[in-house]
Amino acid sequence: MTIDRTQTVGARLESALDEFFTDRVRAAATHGPEFEALWARTAEHAGRGKLLRPLLFLDTVEAFDAAADPATVDGLGVALEVLHYAFLLHDDVIDGDLMRRHRPNLVGTLKALHPEPPASAALHWGTSSAILMGDMLLSAVVLRCGRLALPADVRNRVLDLLEEAIGETVAGEHLDVGLSDGAIPPALETVMRMTAMKTATYSFALPLRLAAALAGADAEADQTLARAGRDLGFAFQVQDDLLSMVGNPAAHGKDAVSDLREGKETVLISFLRATPHWDEVAGVVGDPRITQADADRVRAAIEASGAREFAEDLVADRLREAIRTVDQSSLPGPVRRVVAECAERIEGRTV
Amino acid sequence: MTIDRTQTVGARLESALDEFFTDRVRAAATHGPEFEALWARTAEHAGRGKLLRPLLFLDTVEAFDAAADPATVDGLGVALEVLHYAFLLHDDVIDGDLMRRHRPNLVGTLKALHPEPPASAALHWGTSSAILMGDMLLSAVVLRCGRLALPADVRNRVLDLLEEAIGETVAGEHLDVGLSDGAIPPALETVMRMTAMKTATYSFALPLRLAAALAGADAEADQTLARAGRDLGFAFQVQDDLLSMVGNPAAHGKDAVSDLREGKETVLISFLRATPHWDEVAGVVGDPRITQADADRVRAAIEASGAREFAEDLVADRLREAIRTVDQSSLPGPVRRVVAECAERIEGRTV
Repeated sequence: MTIDRTQTVGARLESALDEFFTDRVRAAATHGPEFEALWARTAEHAGRGKLLRPLLFLDTVEAFDAAADPATVDGLGVALEVLHYAFLLHDDVIDGDLMRRHRPNLVGTLKALHPEPPASAALHWGTSSAILMGDMLLSAVVLRCGRLALPADVRNRVLDLLEEAIGETVAGEHLDVGLSDGAIPPALETVMRMTAMKTATYSFALPLRLAAALAGADAEADQTLARAGRDLGFAFQVQDDLLSMVGNPAAHGKDAVSDLREGKETVLISFLRATPHWDEVAGVVGDPRITQADADRVRAAIEASGAREFAEDLVADRLREAIRTVDQSSLPGPVRRVVAECAERIEGRTV
Repeated sequence: MTIDRTQTVGARLESALDEFFTDRVRAAATHGPEFEALWARTAEHAGRGKLLRPLLFLDTVEAFDAAADPATVDGLGVALEVLHYAFLLHDDVIDGDLMRRHRPNLVGTLKALHPEPPASAALHWGTSSAILMGDMLLSAVVLRCGRLALPADVRNRVLDLLEEAIGETVAGEHLDVGLSDGAIPPALETVMRMTAMKTATYSFALPLRLAAALAGADAEADQTLARAGRDLGFAFQVQDDLLSMVGNPAAHGKDAVSDLREGKETVLISFLRATPHWDEVAGVVGDPRITQADADRVRAAIEASGAREFAEDLVADRLREAIRTVDQSSLPGPVRRVVAECAERIEGRTV
């Protein structure tokens, strides 16, 4: 039953996302064929996501039994997915990544399509186009929310939540970059804060709270969902770091080598740094010439130091905390169940 | 009288811009001290502009005698300046520029503040922070417009104009990069189109049309201002290219060497390319090792080939055309005068 419903909702979302991009590609054509082509390529890449954020939003809207216009609901669902993709684009530029989920990302695709050498011009063309496309998508999301046919107070509430989520995510990404680049000292506290900021708010708290706003839920419900969303999102991000570092790269689509090459700070690395095992691998993290054998040594040190266990405990604690938060609240039963099911999916995640 | 008024309006705008950044710096503090510091630095850099776009907007609002709420008018003025700075930030990242108007830009400032070597990490920190800050500013502009306390049809009109301007500017920048990187062939027609797109719409057409929207002007007035704005903006951009290439770099704050190093396409270069003088300098344009002596040879070729004259004629033609467009319209006299004065300022521009 749940699966059937999700498939239907998923199909509806996919068609709303298609429609968004079809409209945007057509609008881009008025600015010239080159821009139309860029939008068309972007649509292909953006349409490959798992729709995690809009599905959580739609499930919560339904759980609240919110009397919202379906076009508004689908529009916000699309906005959540496009926001996610806009962040991914700029993230890939900042990280210098050319691949995502075993395939070339937009930067990699454009680089490969560049007509001639030198390779530096092709890479510049790919990254610059991705910066510009991220700008388009981010403004499209905010424009869409600004135009929602909702009472002024609800629309402004949606804009407030969006603003808070964008600020928190960008600030988290800014910390992430500062830690990798050595501009910000890698204290475990800072790494924990970055981990909570860069994904949790826009991916979990925002979908939950947007649904509450559409349902006209009170401030207590909103704050409960904000807290639960942060915990779910923190757990999700640490789980992601675990899968990247000690999971199966073939299934997850990421490998430890690239994160280690960039010197990405995670709770795993930060924990490891404070143990004697750090000395075994300190030179390897952030080394552009890192090999698979080096990465395997880091994985072994993460096991031996207890960093893996620490991270797994963090995931479990935060998921329990999210469930406790909603169970102690006056949120409707179906909304609590959405949060509990979300926690289960994060716990059982292998890809 | 005009000067007095402009000074007063300028002072009011500066204080509105200050207030915007003071609020934003405070809001950023909720996301941590590192983000607050980034916003504070950004505020310093963003406050150095000439306020060209908001002043054109405010002059036009007054010329229409629009009965608009002053807070809304100032808010849109601030939005225009912040939009401009957001574009500059991503433009500087894409062009790899570390200076603007003889001083380090945000990227250069952050690079210099980075605590330790290697220099590549310091540069990455500067450029990544500027990408993220551009995202914040761009979304702040759209959020601000989405929240305007205006009747729904006027607010949606403002959002439509903003969307069109963002699309046109980003598409123009995308062409600009594609031309520099050799991904798009440098036909004069393409370079003319890029020149019209990347500045004209957001810098001239948008301020004029936003004022018309607030004044409740009809579709004919809007289309007249769109056309005049495009011509003013095209002339402004070609004048800018002229000042960069053959003007006085000490006054203008740009020098020909950096544009030539990046292989920037302009109408000057594109015209030159189609003349026999191109052979004298073809190897120099886009060469990372270009010297001042090389740049001087390009300047001489631009003179000798007639490219300078061609560009100067373009500027004069478009400015005349902008004035003719408004003179043949039913726009109020004061609005026509704003356009004519704007054309005069562009014609007489030396910095």
